[in-house]
Amino acid sequence: MNLMEPFAARLSTLDCAAMYGDDFFLTWDKTDDELAALFTVADALRCLRENNISARVFDSGLAVSLFRDNSTRTRFSFASACNLLGLEVQDLDESKSQIAHGETVRETANMISFMADVIGIRDDMYIGKGHAYQKAVSDAVRQGHQAGILEQVPTLVNLQCDIDHPTQCCADLLHMIHTFGGVENLRGKKVAMTWAYSPSYGKPLSVPQGVIGLFTRFGMDVVLAHPEGYDVFPQVEELAAKQAAASGGSFTKVDTMDEAFRDADVVYPKSWAPFAAMEQRTELYAQGDTAGIAALETQLLAQNARHTDWECDERRMALTRNGKALYLHCLPADITGVSCQQGEVAASVFDRYRTSLYRQVSFKPYIIAAMIFLSKIKDPAAALQALEQRGAARKTF
Amino acid sequence: MNLMEPFAARLSTLDCAAMYGDDFFLTWDKTDDELAALFTVADALRCLRENNISARVFDSGLAVSLFRDNSTRTRFSFASACNLLGLEVQDLDESKSQIAHGETVRETANMISFMADVIGIRDDMYIGKGHAYQKAVSDAVRQGHQAGILEQVPTLVNLQCDIDHPTQCCADLLHMIHTFGGVENLRGKKVAMTWAYSPSYGKPLSVPQGVIGLFTRFGMDVVLAHPEGYDVFPQVEELAAKQAAASGGSFTKVDTMDEAFRDADVVYPKSWAPFAAMEQRTELYAQGDTAGIAALETQLLAQNARHTDWECDERRMALTRNGKALYLHCLPADITGVSCQQGEVAASVFDRYRTSLYRQVSFKPYIIAAMIFLSKIKDPAAALQALEQRGAARKTF
Amino acid sequence: MNLMEPFAARLSTLDCAAMYGDDFFLTWDKTDDELAALFTVADALRCLRENNISARVFDSGLAVSLFRDNSTRTRFSFASACNLLGLEVQDLDESKSQIAHGETVRETANMISFMADVIGIRDDMYIGKGHAYQKAVSDAVRQGHQAGILEQVPTLVNLQCDIDHPTQCCADLLHMIHTFGGVENLRGKKVAMTWAYSPSYGKPLSVPQGVIGLFTRFGMDVVLAHPEGYDVFPQVEELAAKQAAASGGSFTKVDTMDEAFRDADVVYPKSWAPFAAMEQRTELYAQGDTAGIAALETQLLAQNARHTDWECDERRMALTRNGKALYLHCLPADITGVSCQQGEVAASVFDRYRTSLYRQVSFKPYIIAAMIFLSKIKDPAAALQALEQRGAARKTF
Repeated sequence: MNLMEPFAARLSTLDCAAMYGDDFFLTWDKTDDELAALFTVADALRCLRENNISARVFDSGLAVSLFRDNSTRTRFSFASACNLLGLEVQDLDESKSQIAHGETVRETANMISFMADVIGIRDDMYIGKGHAYQKAVSDAVRQGHQAGILEQVPTLVNLQCDIDHPTQCCADLLHMIHTFGGVENLRGKKVAMTWAYSPSYGKPLSVPQGVIGLFTRFGMDVVLAHPEGYDVFPQVEELAAKQAAASGGSFTKVDTMDEAFRDADVVYPKSWAPFAAMEQRTELYAQGDTAGIAALETQLLAQNARHTDWECDERRMALTRNGKALYLHCLPADITGVSCQQGEVAASVFDRYRTSLYRQVSFKPYIIAAMIFLSKIKDPAAALQALEQRGAARKTF
Repeated sequence: MNLMEPFAARLSTLDCAAMYGDDFFLTWDKTDDELAALFTVADALRCLRENNISARVFDSGLAVSLFRDNSTRTRFSFASACNLLGLEVQDLDESKSQIAHGETVRETANMISFMADVIGIRDDMYIGKGHAYQKAVSDAVRQGHQAGILEQVPTLVNLQCDIDHPTQCCADLLHMIHTFGGVENLRGKKVAMTWAYSPSYGKPLSVPQGVIGLFTRFGMDVVLAHPEGYDVFPQVEELAAKQAAASGGSFTKVDTMDEAFRDADVVYPKSWAPFAAMEQRTELYAQGDTAGIAALETQLLAQNARHTDWECDERRMALTRNGKALYLHCLPADITGVSCQQGEVAASVFDRYRTSLYRQVSFKPYIIAAMIFLSKIKDPAAALQALEQRGAARKTF
Repeated sequence: MNLMEPFAARLSTLDCAAMYGDDFFLTWDKTDDELAALFTVADALRCLRENNISARVFDSGLAVSLFRDNSTRTRFSFASACNLLGLEVQDLDESKSQIAHGETVRETANMISFMADVIGIRDDMYIGKGHAYQKAVSDAVRQGHQAGILEQVPTLVNLQCDIDHPTQCCADLLHMIHTFGGVENLRGKKVAMTWAYSPSYGKPLSVPQGVIGLFTRFGMDVVLAHPEGYDVFPQVEELAAKQAAASGGSFTKVDTMDEAFRDADVVYPKSWAPFAAMEQRTELYAQGDTAGIAALETQLLAQNARHTDWECDERRMALTRNGKALYLHCLPADITGVSCQQGEVAASVFDRYRTSLYRQVSFKPYIIAAMIFLSKIKDPAAALQALEQRGAARKTF
């Protein structure tokens, strides 16, 4: 049996050499070949695990996680990915750390990286901050390595920032590839990335931005829909349009959920906060303006409440291709009558897609593991075959 | 040297095939053979470790812990057991997790189990809830495995629920087996499981229930004593009576600590809350009735205070078999004059048994490891011998 | 290539047999040979890692950490060290633990040590408490091992106590050894350990005490300077004087930062609290005297504020040997105009030494790993060579 052969063969046709030693910030930093390599390695690692073959490439080493926002799915995905490769997760809990007021990012970054092969960061709350912080950490550890402080350069994995959520969106895409039977079958499919009502406020924009910034590269017809005032980061919209043109797909904006859903093959209805409001909130936080933040929250909740009809219900699902579009969500979803009175999705729709939704998330650990693998392993094709040949059991007996 | 031979020989006489792939919820779910296998594997794993032979059967893999109540002993026992077998513990801290209001157990269970081989849960606070929750998690991950979401079915290990505390009670029993020189020597021994006074309220019932639900299976004369109104779960009492009859022992209830202690070979004096009050508290919590909970607490503390004389003191210890009964406690104990003014046990009694008490707990990591081992390894007898033959040192050099 | 040969050769000349099985509390508990062995093993382990050779001596095992004060640098150093050797860190979070009021140290110590090979403790807040607590834990686990409760004796590593901060000060010293090109080159060097102003209060004394208690053993001229009233533990000063005499160096006290800095080869300007005030605070805490503590804090901050001129600025750095003394700090530093209005060090000075400071800390993981290695491995010279010969890659492929 040669399980890894097809994966290695595929990798050998792709130019992913630049991923070696590199970070993963935004999907659009990566070439098409590099994304193809990512999906290939993710599938290969899953295949190894399903066949009880150890994918452990590290005998020891740490993976540092820093979650500046709550997380279950991504936290456990990161832990799973690191453990699969042999790295132990050490969480940086800023509340228990002696990080001095005014301590530089450069100092903290070096102090947590003595034996860190990976640093995973979620920092998605403030516009203009999350991605910048991740970049600063990456720069700092590279300097630290050059200065002989660190023996290795830890790979930075973006576990969600203010701009993109690459581990999520790549898992979403890999789920579509498997659902539709190959990346080539995505071509011409219509995807509706739409806003949906939620009784909470201030949800990050990284998912809708990540989706239009990634899905437009695969020849799909990507439609973005949201109520007036819920625009996403304009640069990402521009990027989406350019990519769609280049890939032979399209990127359009429409004003209603119905129009977006009509004949869609894939729907991704999800709440997010308006970009302009998030910018405002970021400034208010910087100024410590608590009253201003409270006022903004009240205003945004009221604004949201004007759009409770943006729900993914059975009527709208019936508008999709044969009434059977693939329903995607990054979870947790606000389910009407379950987690809230009125939410993003009707309970009956959510229930019908529950298994599919969980399978969607189940690609995330492998996506993260593949990001690490491609950054750490110089010849990934050879390494995958060598892992199979080594044949170490993940569970012995 | 063939250290594992006697353990393997013993296992080969026992039918424990059904433990493979199964969870561990309640001791009375398991047959006598299965419990015997559990004790045998626990002893075998301890023997391997004492001889510096690695018992690592996992090259990688996660063990998820969820503690809904504070824990030191069980937390470190679980960590030790998992580490012994090669699993890394990933704690689910519900306060740091993005678990949505109304998120289903099914969703959370799948999201934490991507690469989880084991899930250990402590959920002991509310009557009718803890065991049900554990069952729901187990059902969810089995569904998740069937649906292709999870590559493996994580084994659920009950780290204490509202009904039973199997890792504790099995450690207690293994300690008795070693103290009395064999399981056959437990036959005919008198055990006093008695209530004792504590200035705190609301202690779980899982230990007294677990004790009478387990010890009655070994031909012992188990006596339960408590003040009026401190009844335990009636179904467990019925079970204890049936099991005692079947095993050739007995299960009786008496009204005083003195009567229970008289000629006892083993005493287990420990505070617990009345079952009926715990049911009431569970309802008050469900209703969010804070005033009601406070009132119940005041009432229960006053009720407790009428029974301060239920203390394991020197006079009572003198009533036991030759004044030398084995004193058991799951720890931490409320020690009179040490941890409180008036508690469960006199300081001089506790001090005399301190080493024995710590040895009692020291079986817990091996019990947990054996639960995992028997659930994960198809042929445990062969695996133990193979581990010895492999001869990997736990500590090299 | 025989990387380990020089390290092994050096070790073979040193008597470090008594480190086997021993704890690491205070540097002055150790002989000169033992400290030399510590530095040698630290360098050897770093060499192995830099050459991608696994230093994993444990196949499994736990390292328990207990931080009673916040920590980033030491927490990640400890995690790195343990991971390097194959141990998994399990943190004892006292807030999530079921540690009963009045529970003895002996009980807790045994309950967390079932499979613990190492226990690392930071407990630096209260005079007369931290070291005593660590000793009590060590005594308890040794008793536990003798009583058959624990299969192994966990090595206690002092991660900072009220008296000493050995992992920090040994890292500082190893950094000096590398900076000056050998331990023999430290002889005759002038070191200024001086107080510096900080707007915070109550900083531990363990660093200045640890520095004068260690550096005086290497033939250096150690000068201690602080404002009136900021004395350190008098016994450590006596020890420093004796050691300086024995090593052919000197230990002197001066009243001004300028005098200390003049012609210094090394400067270590750092804030700390007055010993007498810390003793007072400890008593106030013990009495639960919140008002007294607040009053003391106000008084100490006012006292500090009289000495804002104790800053390591450019003028003072110019007083040092060729204006180029090595600037040391345990980090985080209070940097004037960066982390506070007025602090321990001028921003321009700190910036010039930033890389050197980070390299200083980078020795800490290896110091901790060496402490563990020497306590756990009977023949460290042979083991280092065997590790190289085994040639297991830390990262495969």
